[in-house]
Amino acid sequence: MAPMPTDTPEALSAYPICVRIPIAWGDMDAFQHVNNTVFFRYFETARINYFSAVGTLAPMESTGVGPILAETSCRFRRPLTFPDTVIAAVRVPLESLEEDRYTMEHVLWSEAQQTIAAMGTGSIVSFDYRNERRAPVPEVVRAAMVALESD
Amino acid sequence: MAPMPTDTPEALSAYPICVRIPIAWGDMDAFQHVNNTVFFRYFETARINYFSAVGTLAPMESTGVGPILAETSCRFRRPLTFPDTVIAAVRVPLESLEEDRYTMEHVLWSEAQQTIAAMGTGSIVSFDYRNERRAPVPEVVRAAMVALESD
Amino acid sequence: MAPMPTDTPEALSAYPICVRIPIAWGDMDAFQHVNNTVFFRYFETARINYFSAVGTLAPMESTGVGPILAETSCRFRRPLTFPDTVIAAVRVPLESLEEDRYTMEHVLWSEAQQTIAAMGTGSIVSFDYRNERRAPVPEVVRAAMVALESD
Amino acid sequence: MAPMPTDTPEALSAYPICVRIPIAWGDMDAFQHVNNTVFFRYFETARINYFSAVGTLAPMESTGVGPILAETSCRFRRPLTFPDTVIAAVRVPLESLEEDRYTMEHVLWSEAQQTIAAMGTGSIVSFDYRNERRAPVPEVVRAAMVALESD
Repeated sequence: MAPMPTDTPEALSAYPICVRIPIAWGDMDAFQHVNNTVFFRYFETARINYFSAVGTLAPMESTGVGPILAETSCRFRRPLTFPDTVIAAVRVPLESLEEDRYTMEHVLWSEAQQTIAAMGTGSIVSFDYRNERRAPVPEVVRAAMVALESD
Repeated sequence: MAPMPTDTPEALSAYPICVRIPIAWGDMDAFQHVNNTVFFRYFETARINYFSAVGTLAPMESTGVGPILAETSCRFRRPLTFPDTVIAAVRVPLESLEEDRYTMEHVLWSEAQQTIAAMGTGSIVSFDYRNERRAPVPEVVRAAMVALESD
Repeated sequence: MAPMPTDTPEALSAYPICVRIPIAWGDMDAFQHVNNTVFFRYFETARINYFSAVGTLAPMESTGVGPILAETSCRFRRPLTFPDTVIAAVRVPLESLEEDRYTMEHVLWSEAQQTIAAMGTGSIVSFDYRNERRAPVPEVVRAAMVALESD
Repeated sequence: MAPMPTDTPEALSAYPICVRIPIAWGDMDAFQHVNNTVFFRYFETARINYFSAVGTLAPMESTGVGPILAETSCRFRRPLTFPDTVIAAVRVPLESLEEDRYTMEHVLWSEAQQTIAAMGTGSIVSFDYRNERRAPVPEVVRAAMVALESD
């Protein structure tokens, strides 16, 4: 899907999914910085790419089991402004991977500032939408996550 | 759904659907005015309320026939700023109601400025999603539109 | 600014700022729930109302001291859907009010579901934009916060 | 700023500004297509790039003369979905360039569909913000526009 940037900074080397996102002028708010809600949009773009890479969404139609974002947070380190490009990087520390949940760790890298502009987390719960209860992360998804994070 | 404002200005008396929308601080962009894309969000809110009022979306599941926004436009007359509340008003001139299409006319009223801040249009095409071609506006919807616009 | 809802639920009685926000159809994403980034937009609307109520932004022009959102988080308890109205409630526990920072506690109440749909936090740092360093919360703002939270 | 795509399709050869924009999953709405307001965000991104290319915003600080978006429209030809990348192309037909106004023509190209997904227009008025009236397009901007469009 989104190609891995070829010039990923060293600081992101532990993050298997890195998506380059050009900041839109319209991402800024009346304080003339990228609005805080847009940081979560960047996180989301990385998360969806991660889901694609490990096949998280594929079993949903046949089994009804899919991910829920249960909690998310962001720590703002540097304001972002247009024009710039961020690299939205995400990883899942394997020690966070429990039977029915795991934690994503997000980083936003500013190419213009050559530094990490924000860090964040996302708690993902595996959910059986048909029976409305938590469900184990499907084995094939778990295996893909372990492989992706072990590269 | 959204209650008709009780104090609708005279200028909106010909508009059967009027929705009060508080402007969010975050609707403003780096020029410190409400961003142009948000005007179309306000139009959309009015459009969805109109669709609800005449039952446009109800037949979609049984017949597959629903509306498509084919074209839309906005003329900006006054900049909008936070804090303010807009009234998003919409009507369908019955002379625009053809077999498979009609035109919505939008107005955004600024309560703070007591004037019309923007005007716009939306061309709606009735579409048979199953057979992928235009389809007549369902009779029950057409009747509801005629009744709503004739009040 | 935004009027205090007259029918604020008991669960929100400890929150001095409560803003009613109609959910827009366009707040929903492809999963047909209100998108996670929009929860932070609702938080922001409450935060800006809080800032207005205690005069946080007023000293910025004369002294250059204003607030920075340093960190924010949201815990999602119930999906939100259109049509609905949320009450975005916010308070600052006085025990969090330090010399140059404090924590906002957010709650989003769903009127349709009659329950709390999400909870969150925001860490606010008082910043001297001219000298680019932290600064004490201005005395007049601190006094207004204490008064607001002690009602 | 945004680099000109190297593989611009023939259909866009008359457009001097072409910006590649990856569609975000979150650009889609509950109908699982890119929301109509986002098309105007893509137009805006192209417009801002155009302004940068011809120096439209540069004189604003010294002279107070800058652009206003007076009117905009979009014709939707194909639904857009994630994942995809659009090329937002824009040009100003020189015959539209009057003393204090001109018209931008927008096209959105879908790389996945290899076709034009939407077309639109934007009417730009040159405005003297200090004296609150229309003002001629600054000569240096006009010359840059003529050069850009004549290449």
